[in-house]
Amino acid sequence: MTWQRPDNRQPDELRPIKFERRFTQYAAGSVLAHCGNTRVLCTASISEQVPRFLKGSGKGWLTAEYRMLPGATHTRNERELMKLSGRTQEIQRLIGRSLRSALDMEALGERSLTIDADVLQADGGTRTTAIMGAYVALEDAIAALIQSGQLTASPLRHQIAAISVGLLEGDPFLDLNYPEDFAADTDFNVVMNEKLEFVEVQGTAEAGSFTRKQLNGLLDYAEKGIAEVMTLQKAALKVGL
Amino acid sequence: MTWQRPDNRQPDELRPIKFERRFTQYAAGSVLAHCGNTRVLCTASISEQVPRFLKGSGKGWLTAEYRMLPGATHTRNERELMKLSGRTQEIQRLIGRSLRSALDMEALGERSLTIDADVLQADGGTRTTAIMGAYVALEDAIAALIQSGQLTASPLRHQIAAISVGLLEGDPFLDLNYPEDFAADTDFNVVMNEKLEFVEVQGTAEAGSFTRKQLNGLLDYAEKGIAEVMTLQKAALKVGL
Amino acid sequence: MTWQRPDNRQPDELRPIKFERRFTQYAAGSVLAHCGNTRVLCTASISEQVPRFLKGSGKGWLTAEYRMLPGATHTRNERELMKLSGRTQEIQRLIGRSLRSALDMEALGERSLTIDADVLQADGGTRTTAIMGAYVALEDAIAALIQSGQLTASPLRHQIAAISVGLLEGDPFLDLNYPEDFAADTDFNVVMNEKLEFVEVQGTAEAGSFTRKQLNGLLDYAEKGIAEVMTLQKAALKVGL
Amino acid sequence: MTWQRPDNRQPDELRPIKFERRFTQYAAGSVLAHCGNTRVLCTASISEQVPRFLKGSGKGWLTAEYRMLPGATHTRNERELMKLSGRTQEIQRLIGRSLRSALDMEALGERSLTIDADVLQADGGTRTTAIMGAYVALEDAIAALIQSGQLTASPLRHQIAAISVGLLEGDPFLDLNYPEDFAADTDFNVVMNEKLEFVEVQGTAEAGSFTRKQLNGLLDYAEKGIAEVMTLQKAALKVGL
Amino acid sequence: MTWQRPDNRQPDELRPIKFERRFTQYAAGSVLAHCGNTRVLCTASISEQVPRFLKGSGKGWLTAEYRMLPGATHTRNERELMKLSGRTQEIQRLIGRSLRSALDMEALGERSLTIDADVLQADGGTRTTAIMGAYVALEDAIAALIQSGQLTASPLRHQIAAISVGLLEGDPFLDLNYPEDFAADTDFNVVMNEKLEFVEVQGTAEAGSFTRKQLNGLLDYAEKGIAEVMTLQKAALKVGL
Amino acid sequence: MTWQRPDNRQPDELRPIKFERRFTQYAAGSVLAHCGNTRVLCTASISEQVPRFLKGSGKGWLTAEYRMLPGATHTRNERELMKLSGRTQEIQRLIGRSLRSALDMEALGERSLTIDADVLQADGGTRTTAIMGAYVALEDAIAALIQSGQLTASPLRHQIAAISVGLLEGDPFLDLNYPEDFAADTDFNVVMNEKLEFVEVQGTAEAGSFTRKQLNGLLDYAEKGIAEVMTLQKAALKVGL
Repeated sequence: MTWQRPDNRQPDELRPIKFERRFTQYAAGSVLAHCGNTRVLCTASISEQVPRFLKGSGKGWLTAEYRMLPGATHTRNERELMKLSGRTQEIQRLIGRSLRSALDMEALGERSLTIDADVLQADGGTRTTAIMGAYVALEDAIAALIQSGQLTASPLRHQIAAISVGLLEGDPFLDLNYPEDFAADTDFNVVMNEKLEFVEVQGTAEAGSFTRKQLNGLLDYAEKGIAEVMTLQKAALKVGL
Repeated sequence: MTWQRPDNRQPDELRPIKFERRFTQYAAGSVLAHCGNTRVLCTASISEQVPRFLKGSGKGWLTAEYRMLPGATHTRNERELMKLSGRTQEIQRLIGRSLRSALDMEALGERSLTIDADVLQADGGTRTTAIMGAYVALEDAIAALIQSGQLTASPLRHQIAAISVGLLEGDPFLDLNYPEDFAADTDFNVVMNEKLEFVEVQGTAEAGSFTRKQLNGLLDYAEKGIAEVMTLQKAALKVGL
Repeated sequence: MTWQRPDNRQPDELRPIKFERRFTQYAAGSVLAHCGNTRVLCTASISEQVPRFLKGSGKGWLTAEYRMLPGATHTRNERELMKLSGRTQEIQRLIGRSLRSALDMEALGERSLTIDADVLQADGGTRTTAIMGAYVALEDAIAALIQSGQLTASPLRHQIAAISVGLLEGDPFLDLNYPEDFAADTDFNVVMNEKLEFVEVQGTAEAGSFTRKQLNGLLDYAEKGIAEVMTLQKAALKVGL
Repeated sequence: MTWQRPDNRQPDELRPIKFERRFTQYAAGSVLAHCGNTRVLCTASISEQVPRFLKGSGKGWLTAEYRMLPGATHTRNERELMKLSGRTQEIQRLIGRSLRSALDMEALGERSLTIDADVLQADGGTRTTAIMGAYVALEDAIAALIQSGQLTASPLRHQIAAISVGLLEGDPFLDLNYPEDFAADTDFNVVMNEKLEFVEVQGTAEAGSFTRKQLNGLLDYAEKGIAEVMTLQKAALKVGL
Repeated sequence: MTWQRPDNRQPDELRPIKFERRFTQYAAGSVLAHCGNTRVLCTASISEQVPRFLKGSGKGWLTAEYRMLPGATHTRNERELMKLSGRTQEIQRLIGRSLRSALDMEALGERSLTIDADVLQADGGTRTTAIMGAYVALEDAIAALIQSGQLTASPLRHQIAAISVGLLEGDPFLDLNYPEDFAADTDFNVVMNEKLEFVEVQGTAEAGSFTRKQLNGLLDYAEKGIAEVMTLQKAALKVGL
Repeated sequence: MTWQRPDNRQPDELRPIKFERRFTQYAAGSVLAHCGNTRVLCTASISEQVPRFLKGSGKGWLTAEYRMLPGATHTRNERELMKLSGRTQEIQRLIGRSLRSALDMEALGERSLTIDADVLQADGGTRTTAIMGAYVALEDAIAALIQSGQLTASPLRHQIAAISVGLLEGDPFLDLNYPEDFAADTDFNVVMNEKLEFVEVQGTAEAGSFTRKQLNGLLDYAEKGIAEVMTLQKAALKVGL
């Protein structure tokens, strides 16, 4: 027996993906990323400060913060106040590493970029939606630095996108929504650049284990999905603001 | 010399106010409240638990949380992690008290409502915008409880709205935006119910002091503004979801 | 039916108020303020440091901290350790703003004043008693700065006092003690200067709402009470230390 | 050369010691203990709860908290907010152990006593002053339990007092004030019961070391001082409240 | 040019690996795992409690904690006190998930196992060394439960081991030590069971990206290394305690 | 009736004591100290920084941290995360003061030494075992500074050792193990230097009280035990590393 997708998608079919640029006006880049019912507000902010370990180095930096708003889920989820959960920290470290891999830090110069990914609505794939939206917000923030004359050329060396894949009843599926993510035996998050080379691969057998063959099937779907996301990112960025 | 409003409004003129209901789908009530450029996402969530001091009392409760997203302002503002600032705590206590004054807690029964007010964009008046939006979200959450048969009648006894007023160059002005709020000598937040009776009055002379006569001028403007906000709330709530 | 005051005071009658100056010897100003059974130890300390945002500005600053000792109430109340409650933060922010409104920060010069208000015994009106006592402690601390030659003239531009008023059974009453505060429908804290102009007005309908007319009655009583407190402050300060 | 005491006391002479009972009215026991210029407000509060490990055991418990008010010292000392210093924890554990040694926990029954020792003015010997004052407050709290009929007989089995001694220029001195404490090479805190048996001995060579002979000289002075403190405690407790 | 290993190992050669069982005596399982100069003390403790979400379910649980002792590295590294770093949380979550995949939670019954992995000396591969040692400690803890009669059969369904692999100068290498880990472009941690199926795959391009072909080379090495580690685990467990 | 020691030692007999130097390789000094079944890993680390209050003074500093690993006891003990317990803080302050008394801080120069005492296995006397082992680790760390040419002569002025003694059934016993420590009425920790002069004396009557005569008996045993420990320290340090 094989898994029947709740929204009748093909195994290798993405949900509708959309990037609303300049969703808010004050951050340098601000994108509301939709992936099915998942909605993540991704803002990119610029600061002329760098962390202490980079002072005087001529190099810049990028960090990321990720949070889920309490009303984003069917049952209200508590804000993390005194400390961040391990899950939240893992996700924001993943977002940060992924986007840093796109940047030439010397070309950026001694300034910092902060990505804030706030999940307004959660239906699975929030971390990969955050990464795909953050890339678009980052392009807009860099464009603002160029327009204001602070930069003469873009320090972005790569396009970055991400998608989740997973095994359900032993078979691979692309872009799991929440009920699928919950039911999956194995869950992968894959981040790639425009050459379709890997930046991150994180796979966990929530129950049991997975074979080398299954892993290859999952990576094939991830590659296909990320290529499609990149086309959508490029289309969104073509429009003038 | 008198204050010239940056957006050319009359002294007693509100900014454009709008309530986008069901802005997200999973919370029982979800309203994106706009007041000029200020945007606050107000969600109302329902839980069948009550705080310990109400267990077995037959009475319900309402609490509120307020946060500003980091990208909501021109300069990124840090998230409050280890502890909430005094300002944030004051605001969420104000929102909670204001909305509780609208509810008959026995009619609500032993369940809790949580208002989450997350500021997506901040241009002054975020706490009063949160209160006016939270009232609309609360109406929707109560409607959901009635529709699901958990309640047979609404426990809402009052309509609640709020507005800010302030003294600029000694004269009263209604609904200050951020540059006005920054320049104001005296800053008032007023919360009223549908009888235009006061629920809260909080006035601070940021610099100097204010006379009884000035206070009366400010309260006249607040009353006028709140009456208009209430008309807009009612109009928004008339539309079917 | 109207409210009968437990201590048989007239509706507009203050409790006995007393300021014990130099209650302790090491702080620059140290006043044990009595308001009925409420006792607040108010100390004013001087530091030659200013917060970072004022360094090099030539201006000084004042902050306030407020705490209730565990034994101050009939049932022992826990110390606030990991975080301050919203109530405590609101009160110490109110004390700080109120006293800052009395000071010419340029005349004070680049130094900081810290007000510590520690409630030894709590019978209602602790925040207003803290403000009235803190003003006296502040005068003593400034006198010490003048005596030591660090200042040549006082930077105090205003006398500051505060009182609480409230509605009980719909009628206004001055200076509520704890049982009255507990029973009140509406609770106001008012801070004024020597011109009887407002510095702060904070009014909350704990239950229900209040009319413009009731608000006016409350403010009339507050004005009368504050004028009397100011006479007592001046008398206390006339005595040599 | 030998140490000249700043207040001209004999080496084995105590400072003036005084216990102001019922200094505040709401705690079951409330004593302002004076030891020279050191002033510690000691309150004893009663709760009908016990810590979890004693539930159902029929036994009671006593804990202690110790704090120094910010204005107690010449230079304002910061409140301990996020965590208690090692010094504060050591002191409150010492106070708790010392007073617990006086109590028959079965005779107390399943209830808790909390000692709060708040230093209003600090001139050396704050922890020993806290212990001597706490004993008096404890007697008053127990008397209240007997008067209200909750206890029929006192569970206090011992009188407890404490004093500091130290080596200055190699010689022993009794009851060091702050300048002496600061200058001392070796600092001892001794707690004894009415049989002049030891409950606690804590001695530290702040610089260097001390011989067995010096230790004996210090303990002789401590014994003499504690005997005198106990006479003063008994005299204070003889007066009716 | 290709990478020359500092210890002259072949690219697919492990460091010497050793498991000292019963390194301490009080924990149910206690193993000092050596992997080259990396030393991790892995203890497995048993508790008859389960987390709240499992009470009454008949199922058990396993959690893991990971810390690095301050003296484990050339430069002393600070203990994590108020909050755990994202790195520490990621690692202890990885250890927990990996070992849970080995256990039949129903066969374990309502009890908890806690793995504590404390790094005494760190020379790269601390998380994979923790996992390989924890498996051995877990076997010993389960044996203790069987010997005491609390279990009649082992709930362990799988053998678990882990190893790190990485790309240096573009080529794959097995079991990186610290200087190699520091120099690596891409860093993988792989966890497998006795069927050489994957439990976890986590790969990060610290700089740049990696191709599908490189990923396959890394996984080939990981599989070879894990098979060898499993042989060593089995040999260590054959010896009687 | 008198106490029968569980391991049949004489009342004044130490447990077997051993110092494994260079137990780990990266810290400047690293000693696994054994005292019976108690095992404490003591490392001494060097930093060229000093605390702010010593900057520019030409003087160095030493601090100590103490922790018990979770698996060190029969029942797993939780790590202290959000705050250190009073017990832990007392112990690490004691270790720090004791070792500082051995050092000439001017001869050390502006650098810091950190002692980390991590208890791998706990069978009573962990704090005194930490002090005796830390002294040996400190000698090794100083030797490393001399060998590297950073120091030309040792700043160590004293040998430091510590031991516990206690009253059981009213009689004194040397070097209590855990069951004895648990049963003891009175518990002493004594720290001495090579002249057998006291550096610290801390004695607590866990139950009841103790006489001057008993105190003298305890100190006699402590002196004997510490003299023996010092012989063992010297022997351990004679061996070349």
